[in-house]
Amino acid sequence: DPYLKVFTLKSNPELAQEIAEHVGVELGKSSVKRFSDGEVQINIEESIRGCDVFVVQSTSEPVNEHIMELLIMVDALKRASARTINIVMPYYGYARQDRKARSREPITSKLVADLIETAGADRVITLDLHASQIQGFFNIPIDHLVGVKLLGEHFLEKNLEDVVVVSPDHGGVTRARMLADRLKAPIAIIDKRRPKPNVAEVMNIVGNVEGKTAILIDDIIDTAGTITLAANAMMENGAKAVYACCTHPVLSGPAIERIDNSKIKELAVTNSIPLSEEKQSPKIKQLSVGKLIAESIKRVHEHRSISSLFD
Amino acid sequence: DPYLKVFTLKSNPELAQEIAEHVGVELGKSSVKRFSDGEVQINIEESIRGCDVFVVQSTSEPVNEHIMELLIMVDALKRASARTINIVMPYYGYARQDRKARSREPITSKLVADLIETAGADRVITLDLHASQIQGFFNIPIDHLVGVKLLGEHFLEKNLEDVVVVSPDHGGVTRARMLADRLKAPIAIIDKRRPKPNVAEVMNIVGNVEGKTAILIDDIIDTAGTITLAANAMMENGAKAVYACCTHPVLSGPAIERIDNSKIKELAVTNSIPLSEEKQSPKIKQLSVGKLIAESIKRVHEHRSISSLFD
Ligand SMILES: Nc1ncnc2c1ncn2[C@@H]1O[C@H](COP(=O)(O)O)[C@@H](O)[C@H]1O
Ligand SMILES: Nc1ncnc2c1ncn2[C@@H]1O[C@H](COP(=O)(O)O)[C@@H](O)[C@H]1O
Repeated sequence: DPYLKVFTLKSNPELAQEIAEHVGVELGKSSVKRFSDGEVQINIEESIRGCDVFVVQSTSEPVNEHIMELLIMVDALKRASARTINIVMPYYGYARQDRKARSREPITSKLVADLIETAGADRVITLDLHASQIQGFFNIPIDHLVGVKLLGEHFLEKNLEDVVVVSPDHGGVTRARMLADRLKAPIAIIDKRRPKPNVAEVMNIVGNVEGKTAILIDDIIDTAGTITLAANAMMENGAKAVYACCTHPVLSGPAIERIDNSKIKELAVTNSIPLSEEKQSPKIKQLSVGKLIAESIKRVHEHRSISSLFD
Repeated sequence: DPYLKVFTLKSNPELAQEIAEHVGVELGKSSVKRFSDGEVQINIEESIRGCDVFVVQSTSEPVNEHIMELLIMVDALKRASARTINIVMPYYGYARQDRKARSREPITSKLVADLIETAGADRVITLDLHASQIQGFFNIPIDHLVGVKLLGEHFLEKNLEDVVVVSPDHGGVTRARMLADRLKAPIAIIDKRRPKPNVAEVMNIVGNVEGKTAILIDDIIDTAGTITLAANAMMENGAKAVYACCTHPVLSGPAIERIDNSKIKELAVTNSIPLSEEKQSPKIKQLSVGKLIAESIKRVHEHRSISSLFD
């Protein structure tokens, strides 16, 4: 289909390649380089006039570089007369700055939504937003995919017995419920509480983990403090094994060291963020969202193709 | 004046301090840090409700970091009820991406203008834009300051004799004329021409430099290729000494080495971009635009204060 183009930027070249294969096209030709002073230099090297263009870029670390690259690419596509510009952003950076936690703070995830629209994007395809409310920050359509099916299939294949799916905090209960449904397992919740100011938090477990195989689930694992403490709490409360999973392996700072030294037997993640050399660990199993995203792209493009008969 | 605030971000802390002193206020209190995964974390640590706020940030290298920091700061100021948000951007990055030089290229300086407006800025104070047309990329007021007065005063103090002001290309003739007027000197222009494709450029000099002290002027010196070749051409054409000056010392890649090894006696620049450790050279003399910018801030704020009597 000559009217469907998939381009990659710098964050996820391998995933983009995989998506293009599933969609059945070659990756679009473009050059994304830097001038001597670090300014982004982009040139699109094939005609995209009248095409539905999909640009793959997670706004993972280095987040500001990745955002600016993306916005500049969208600007170039717009000026080159793309029919629609669709951003495929498996990981949406700045998603945790989604409200004013203190006074005089920015709401950067709303800012980023505005920047993306200003640059000229028509649609965003993304995966497991940290807060679903972020969809409302946009005035363009958002396709919000979920990674839980992929994670569920992975754990089903293991044929684990006596599973309990555990949310490391209150905010993640719905996500835990979705995974538990797929595994036909009960859930438990870690209920953190600070008895008095300046006293260590107490981890109270709501639900039963004793003698069970616990699977911890979160959307983002960043420094891995929460998840490794939760794993400890599982073992202390009599779980016989602990697995963990998340959609977005941010894994910054001490994350890998903490995971390697933790009670976690395996951590399953997606490739919404690729694992750089320093983020490799024998405990981490990475699952690809390539097919999931490709299917979403095909749906979007098919619909556009049909509607174009009436243009 | 409690309704005038000057904040700094990461690009030009010393210049911002100097501006605040000239304006007669303390620098505003804010915290600009990074989360573990590299995301920008900003908190404004004093009330700015109802204030005219000036934020000092050049979008110099690392340009994408500096742009995102600025946009996030503007978002925070907007949500904290600033009366007006004024960006002081001594160096406007991406100014050379101001038109499509080839097909399917972005126009990043227009994109950046749109991003700044989207974030919520009310005004931009900037210095020697690479192309004045960039003013038209904005729908908000731009105060466009020029550095030539400062550079002119610097060379006047030297009491040089038989000066000729030289533009290294056709695009810079107006700028050379402005400096020449201040120095009461004639101008010359380097007229580069490629006789045939794949044949080295010929540097033809329009005007007389023989026996004179040449002062080369440009707006930006980046890798310093143009300016050092121009200096050679001056000496080959009988100039008795060569000085150079520019507003924006980008000085990337081989710039310092080229300048140190060139025929240039002294390079005068402004502090629109601070000179990092690797960009120091005994030949470079840096002049401050602090007073110039402070005066512009005072004019803007005075006008707002008067008009507020009628609010
Ligand atoms: N990149 C980040 N790394 C760590 N914490 C963050 C980051 N971005 C935002 N936050 C903080 O995380 C909190 C929101 O996280 P959550 O409660 O999980 O939605 C807020 O207090 C934010 O200030
Ligand atoms: N950061 C940069 N470094 C070097 N060249 C650039 C940069 N940004 C844009 N350009 C190129 O510089 C040319 C415009 O420069 P000028 O003719 O001096 O306005 C265009 O061909 C741009 O592609």
